[in-house]
Amino acid sequence: MIAVAENRYGKSRVRLVQVRRKPEWHDLREWTVELLLRGDFLSCFSDGDNSKILPTDTMKNTVYSLARHSSAECIEDFAKELVDFLLTRNPQVSSAEVSISEKLWDHLQSEGRPHPTAFVQADGETPITAVSRSRTSAFSIYSGLENLVIMKTSGSAFEGYIRDSLTTLAPAKDRLLGTAVRARWLYSAADVAFATLRPKIRAILLAEFAGHESKSVQHTLYAMGKAVLEEVSEVIDIELTMPNKHCLLVDLSRFGQDNPNEVFVPIDEPHGYIEARLCRQG
Amino acid sequence: MIAVAENRYGKSRVRLVQVRRKPEWHDLREWTVELLLRGDFLSCFSDGDNSKILPTDTMKNTVYSLARHSSAECIEDFAKELVDFLLTRNPQVSSAEVSISEKLWDHLQSEGRPHPTAFVQADGETPITAVSRSRTSAFSIYSGLENLVIMKTSGSAFEGYIRDSLTTLAPAKDRLLGTAVRARWLYSAADVAFATLRPKIRAILLAEFAGHESKSVQHTLYAMGKAVLEEVSEVIDIELTMPNKHCLLVDLSRFGQDNPNEVFVPIDEPHGYIEARLCRQG
Amino acid sequence: MIAVAENRYGKSRVRLVQVRRKPEWHDLREWTVELLLRGDFLSCFSDGDNSKILPTDTMKNTVYSLARHSSAECIEDFAKELVDFLLTRNPQVSSAEVSISEKLWDHLQSEGRPHPTAFVQADGETPITAVSRSRTSAFSIYSGLENLVIMKTSGSAFEGYIRDSLTTLAPAKDRLLGTAVRARWLYSAADVAFATLRPKIRAILLAEFAGHESKSVQHTLYAMGKAVLEEVSEVIDIELTMPNKHCLLVDLSRFGQDNPNEVFVPIDEPHGYIEARLCRQG
Amino acid sequence: MIAVAENRYGKSRVRLVQVRRKPEWHDLREWTVELLLRGDFLSCFSDGDNSKILPTDTMKNTVYSLARHSSAECIEDFAKELVDFLLTRNPQVSSAEVSISEKLWDHLQSEGRPHPTAFVQADGETPITAVSRSRTSAFSIYSGLENLVIMKTSGSAFEGYIRDSLTTLAPAKDRLLGTAVRARWLYSAADVAFATLRPKIRAILLAEFAGHESKSVQHTLYAMGKAVLEEVSEVIDIELTMPNKHCLLVDLSRFGQDNPNEVFVPIDEPHGYIEARLCRQG
Repeated sequence: MIAVAENRYGKSRVRLVQVRRKPEWHDLREWTVELLLRGDFLSCFSDGDNSKILPTDTMKNTVYSLARHSSAECIEDFAKELVDFLLTRNPQVSSAEVSISEKLWDHLQSEGRPHPTAFVQADGETPITAVSRSRTSAFSIYSGLENLVIMKTSGSAFEGYIRDSLTTLAPAKDRLLGTAVRARWLYSAADVAFATLRPKIRAILLAEFAGHESKSVQHTLYAMGKAVLEEVSEVIDIELTMPNKHCLLVDLSRFGQDNPNEVFVPIDEPHGYIEARLCRQG
Repeated sequence: MIAVAENRYGKSRVRLVQVRRKPEWHDLREWTVELLLRGDFLSCFSDGDNSKILPTDTMKNTVYSLARHSSAECIEDFAKELVDFLLTRNPQVSSAEVSISEKLWDHLQSEGRPHPTAFVQADGETPITAVSRSRTSAFSIYSGLENLVIMKTSGSAFEGYIRDSLTTLAPAKDRLLGTAVRARWLYSAADVAFATLRPKIRAILLAEFAGHESKSVQHTLYAMGKAVLEEVSEVIDIELTMPNKHCLLVDLSRFGQDNPNEVFVPIDEPHGYIEARLCRQG
Repeated sequence: MIAVAENRYGKSRVRLVQVRRKPEWHDLREWTVELLLRGDFLSCFSDGDNSKILPTDTMKNTVYSLARHSSAECIEDFAKELVDFLLTRNPQVSSAEVSISEKLWDHLQSEGRPHPTAFVQADGETPITAVSRSRTSAFSIYSGLENLVIMKTSGSAFEGYIRDSLTTLAPAKDRLLGTAVRARWLYSAADVAFATLRPKIRAILLAEFAGHESKSVQHTLYAMGKAVLEEVSEVIDIELTMPNKHCLLVDLSRFGQDNPNEVFVPIDEPHGYIEARLCRQG
Repeated sequence: MIAVAENRYGKSRVRLVQVRRKPEWHDLREWTVELLLRGDFLSCFSDGDNSKILPTDTMKNTVYSLARHSSAECIEDFAKELVDFLLTRNPQVSSAEVSISEKLWDHLQSEGRPHPTAFVQADGETPITAVSRSRTSAFSIYSGLENLVIMKTSGSAFEGYIRDSLTTLAPAKDRLLGTAVRARWLYSAADVAFATLRPKIRAILLAEFAGHESKSVQHTLYAMGKAVLEEVSEVIDIELTMPNKHCLLVDLSRFGQDNPNEVFVPIDEPHGYIEARLCRQG
């Protein structure tokens, strides 16, 4: 007999643009939603019994229908609404998980002030959330961000590491340190102030990155996560992924030139990969 | 006190091309390697103590140095070599994981036969492996493939699902079923015949997909995984991810035309997402 | 006064999947269409007069409507149909250009033979065409292919080039030569045998690449294009773009190892770029 | 005899990061350079004579060597330097073209002010330039930008277009208008104030987009280009490419809900494509 050890299904990349129209001012948001359900779907798998299957097309419709009258002001609250709605309407589902990522749009600056109805996309950094709940448990709410691409040109060294017969890297007292941060933190409750905590946490991560006297990516990653945990009591743990996006110093001596830490080649591959999850002790 | 609950680090996207030169015939392979280490690196994180850090640059060098004299004929064997090498040389490391994906190159057909030293890349489908071992345990060896894009134009229905106030999907007796399979299976031992099992498993997956009378993606996914588990005793479990890459039937009645299941719009988003891990019972 | 020196508009990325259903055998094709129109649209631009504008949404509909009853067996013939249809129905349009690229699907091999209704996508290489015609002129028909990724491990040198104070490249008697060919050829007439000429031209390009004793990318590019022009009288000219996808020999001497042209690092950037258009003289 | 009708070759995706270090402040720039040469290279193509070939590897080195002592403060000036250098050193070259795109890095905001040595990447919008010169002619200098993603939620209609048997689009008095602008303008001289003109032109494009009462993409494109030509005498012509990134109003009436222009599905494909080059008349 073949068993289904784990399973989940749903809809990915459901894209939503929403305009909130006030008389003299519009708000614009763009969210991409993924909805995943878990439950005892064995008969669907083994027998082709579809009577328990909520079509993924209906999940897509759910996003648009709920969006119409939702009062959610942030991705975390909308994800909570969707999870609740799916669990309430579908007794065959044991748990639901909704992930949302946001494309940021800023009001376009025109004549020195934000234009009320025109926007420019602030590409790159992506706020994310992943909200899940089983029928019988409390919400688990992760928030985070992806692709926050940052670099520091001072205060970063890498020395004193293991040297062996395969070592070719030269120690650096003063190197460029670049990364594309992925951060994900777990909130201690489902009703914290998502909208104010997010920019606060982002600011802590950036300030720590900028000011840290870095001895390694690990060293800076820890400082960043530690600062969040120390300053934001609503965060239970935080996971940081910080690929080391290398900038290699160009050897100009071959052309009779010096290179006092000024000219670099950025490379996409290979890249270092450093990841850790930090929490409070005990 | 802030603790490091989990951590891993290493090098990603280490790319390797290797040519095996026989007098009248060359073999060409292209592998992309990721190496990740785990261990007690707390002092690196908290104090900037680099004395335990093997630089990721050295890990990259390790790939090339080992490749030179490796006798590995497949990605699984090379990953095992790398894991062993890293654990042997680095007592500070508690476990190592090496993942490799392969770009397939075929000998180019010229004048009706394969040319001995010219190749064409068979883009798309990607063989993968993930091999890990802690210092004290046996190898865990996953093999799999990604982005196997397949479609069937017959033998696929989707009916009898839940209908509610948000349902707009029409039942289909005969729809297109397209997906990009991601498969990952766990081997029961570290010395099975990787190179012959891989094509065997791939062929089972394809044959089952092609021949199955599908009542849903779940139904077909289960049939594919079940067939592998029934026919390949070396596989302990198999995880299949099969996004539903929808092809929507175009409504041509607006133009006074019929559309007898012939003209479709393929869409990338949104897409259904179906995932399950199957194992033998008990 | 501000003039419109040049303009064109239309619809991009119109995706079409078409199934031809015979009793025991299906054919599957996937085409992506771009349609662009030119004409005197000054009043649309300057005054917002839309009376001459065929909506791009209607162009999209045109693709699906024509596909239903088209007898076109290849992208060139379908592009011709679309161009003719657009010019006939839209007197305000002076010329139309339709470009189509194809995703290749092969019948899936199952039990040693092609399955009649199941398919696997042969990702990577992309057949293309660009067909245009003004109201008063004959068709201009380009066919071609993109992303034909090929490599040769023998018969490629690069020596005798200019050496100056910025040279660091070492001459190579025996290097890897890899590229992603983009080819585009102009046919001498609008009714040549597109479907048989395409594989013939592709085979010539590949055979020449494989067999050529290459002294440079330029040298091989010329040999490939020359062979096409010499062997296929229906081709007026051919443009070949062949980026040099470098594979760098790894210096293993740092680890006390030799590297007899076996272990390489493929890099995506930077890459050489070589492009030429060849034609018959006089 | 087979002739080379056109040819060019060079190096693409040469990536450069440069740090300018002042005592209390660093500047960081990231440029990606492409260098292409034209000339009489027939003997290289037809005979494998490499004596006229400057290796593309040397072109790459040229970028780094010149960057070291360049005083260029913008991509246009650095491209000019590279063109001059290549033409001066290589008599076999008849013309050179250098294109540069920039990744924007901003000083990271920390504690309310820009941090002197930490940066965040402003992904998305990309400044570009293309500078070319033949041995005997003056510079041709194009500047521009790519991927400026903008949207307006008011002041955009599309009505009064051609209606025929394939029309399904409904006229819209008030639609979302989104696009990813690609702009490219030709300067009237090689020594204009690139660094101040670029933000001026960008601001004009944005202000016009935001304030325009749009009757079509064409209508707004024209207004944007016209404003640049009228306000910036240094610009000879401007080419604007503005794909129509559609946001489709969701039909919520199926669920008993209204949708007063609030909930939309953004789609990537298909998309409208509108392109024009504007110049001053006469």
